Amino acid sequence: MRTLITNIGELSTCTDAGILRDAAILIENGRIAWVGPADHAPTDPAGYTEVDAGGRAVIPGFVDSHSHLVFGGDRAAEFEARMAGEKYAAGGIRSTVAATRGATDEELRARLRGFVDEMLAQGTTTVEIKSGYGLDVETEQRQVRLAAEVTDEVTFLGAHVVPAEYADDPDGYVDLVTGPMLDACAPHARWIDVFCESGAFTVEQSRRVLEAGIARGLAPRVHASQLGPGDGVRMAVELGAASVDHGTYLTDDDVAALAASDTVLTLLPGVEFSTRQPYPDARRLMDAGVIVALACDTNPGSSFTSSMPFCIAVAVRDMGMTPAEALWAATAGGARALRRDDIGVIVQGARADLVLLDAPSHVHLSYRPGVPLVHTVWKDGVPV
Amino acid sequence: MRTLITNIGELSTCTDAGILRDAAILIENGRIAWVGPADHAPTDPAGYTEVDAGGRAVIPGFVDSHSHLVFGGDRAAEFEARMAGEKYAAGGIRSTVAATRGATDEELRARLRGFVDEMLAQGTTTVEIKSGYGLDVETEQRQVRLAAEVTDEVTFLGAHVVPAEYADDPDGYVDLVTGPMLDACAPHARWIDVFCESGAFTVEQSRRVLEAGIARGLAPRVHASQLGPGDGVRMAVELGAASVDHGTYLTDDDVAALAASDTVLTLLPGVEFSTRQPYPDARRLMDAGVIVALACDTNPGSSFTSSMPFCIAVAVRDMGMTPAEALWAATAGGARALRRDDIGVIVQGARADLVLLDAPSHVHLSYRPGVPLVHTVWKDGVPV
Repeated sequence: MRTLITNIGELSTCTDAGILRDAAILIENGRIAWVGPADHAPTDPAGYTEVDAGGRAVIPGFVDSHSHLVFGGDRAAEFEARMAGEKYAAGGIRSTVAATRGATDEELRARLRGFVDEMLAQGTTTVEIKSGYGLDVETEQRQVRLAAEVTDEVTFLGAHVVPAEYADDPDGYVDLVTGPMLDACAPHARWIDVFCESGAFTVEQSRRVLEAGIARGLAPRVHASQLGPGDGVRMAVELGAASVDHGTYLTDDDVAALAASDTVLTLLPGVEFSTRQPYPDARRLMDAGVIVALACDTNPGSSFTSSMPFCIAVAVRDMGMTPAEALWAATAGGARALRRDDIGVIVQGARADLVLLDAPSHVHLSYRPGVPLVHTVWKDGVPV
Repeated sequence: MRTLITNIGELSTCTDAGILRDAAILIENGRIAWVGPADHAPTDPAGYTEVDAGGRAVIPGFVDSHSHLVFGGDRAAEFEARMAGEKYAAGGIRSTVAATRGATDEELRARLRGFVDEMLAQGTTTVEIKSGYGLDVETEQRQVRLAAEVTDEVTFLGAHVVPAEYADDPDGYVDLVTGPMLDACAPHARWIDVFCESGAFTVEQSRRVLEAGIARGLAPRVHASQLGPGDGVRMAVELGAASVDHGTYLTDDDVAALAASDTVLTLLPGVEFSTRQPYPDARRLMDAGVIVALACDTNPGSSFTSSMPFCIAVAVRDMGMTPAEALWAATAGGARALRRDDIGVIVQGARADLVLLDAPSHVHLSYRPGVPLVHTVWKDGVPV
């Protein structure tokens, strides 16, 4: 099973090799077997399927390192009220928790698979999926189990918020998360995550959650500094988290700590867009040497987009990234946030997760906001 | 040829009838023959094709009343420089003029048809198309002639900017526009348009252009107040223009004049998004009683989106429109801007230009920004 994609007008490798013109890619057994100038492409006596890219651009498949795709219901009415500047009494995460607890596996699975297909059609070939809408042992376990059916990148986020039934005993909830809930979820997950923020979990509670997960073989990642500054970022760096996500409010100390580490700062432009929060300054982060990723944070509350191109367009307009930096953040950056080197780049040996754009350049992802520009997606070398 | 679309969870009529639930639409000979509650749908002894909407939402096809789709080249490098905050010496409209003059009919037609197909796939069933990248008699005439192959809503915009060869004699260019160029273009066009703005055409020049077009049977529409306040809006109202487009900078007098007229104010959120200009305040306009439309202004310079859902999402986030108001502006509002009552609404007798969304509500157009939510498009009753 070999495919040669040729006549690629612009190939963004998302590696130090930068952009190639008039390029070709040879795919073999789901991996990139060769990449280089089209007129040097290997000739194959055994033959291969040849795909003419027609001078269009090819980029790595997007790596969306932050999503919440296993849930019931939606919160369109809450969104509408927020856009109108109105208070919305019901709702919040807890309404999604209620709908998720009440949904059957079949209902959750159908929704989940629909989202994964929707993402794939938009060029996302890898997606991380978090739990956190169960907040009880059974439902959290169902979430990670269902997520594991569709991705290797499953995150246990039992410590998303304190559920209503533990409102008076948040430390009791942390006991549950780090005890029976972790026991139930760890076998299905790769990552442990916590929402370290005023109104969610303190730094001390967050540290307990992450250390318990690490002790069970899970690797840490953290939600922090979404709603205001705090100590979550530095704790995450100290614990060697692969990524701190949100980071809308970062102190100079946070930025310095990130820059001195290999912890990625994952920005989620859909959240600021859909909540009218101020955009974080990606330029400041990149200029300081922080590794920046972009992700959708697809969820029914604060960011229901699943479009990485949309996030790229907003990051370029409102966060100070160049189109090339935003593309890197949405591919190689996402891969770094998942500690993966086999995805998010177009290089020999990497997985053949590729997107052919219906455009001559990756710049069109932000130059043509909202326009579906995905022509063909290959996942593990197979067109989908 | 009859089709019954049934099991529509939410039907936005974009008329005073508002939103219907559990609705159905009967299509006959390209028109809407009946619309109402699904359980009252007419039964047909002769039979019809039945389409199950699966509880999803149906909206009118989008009416995009402002675009520039006939052009050569693109200006991705100029966009990239602008986003980086850099000056870009070459470029501007004149680079597109050079590329358009240099393109063959076949090249322009292929691009044009590609854009129309791209729009249709995103739910736009009617598009207005302007000339204005020729700025000489032959190329302007080619532009309107090619546009007329794909739409009834063709606008002659010879007075887009003063071309380089008339830089020292703008009034001489107005003579050309109102003389031989108008003679060549009027037979292919319905509308006359002018860019009335400092740096383009003065109010006096604009009035000459519009009055010459009106004398040739064209109806007026105007670009004004995009880059700063001016007198263009009140002149447009005085001449009975169907629409004033842009309106980023409006005085209280402008707003009052619009509110007292049936001239539509067409907002173009893609322009502000892609140029980082401040967003106009749609709320102020609507509260004053101005009829507001939304359009993409698809063009290679200031707004290369062709996505009405994207424009709706930005209008809701950044211009103070509710999701329902933004939908109305992108459908019925666009129709008003084209003085049409047979499109942009779902009502008996209107054209069966319809969009089935892959979502339960029109709210999802802004709740899920960037996500392609178009499930099926009918144009004149035929699925495309």
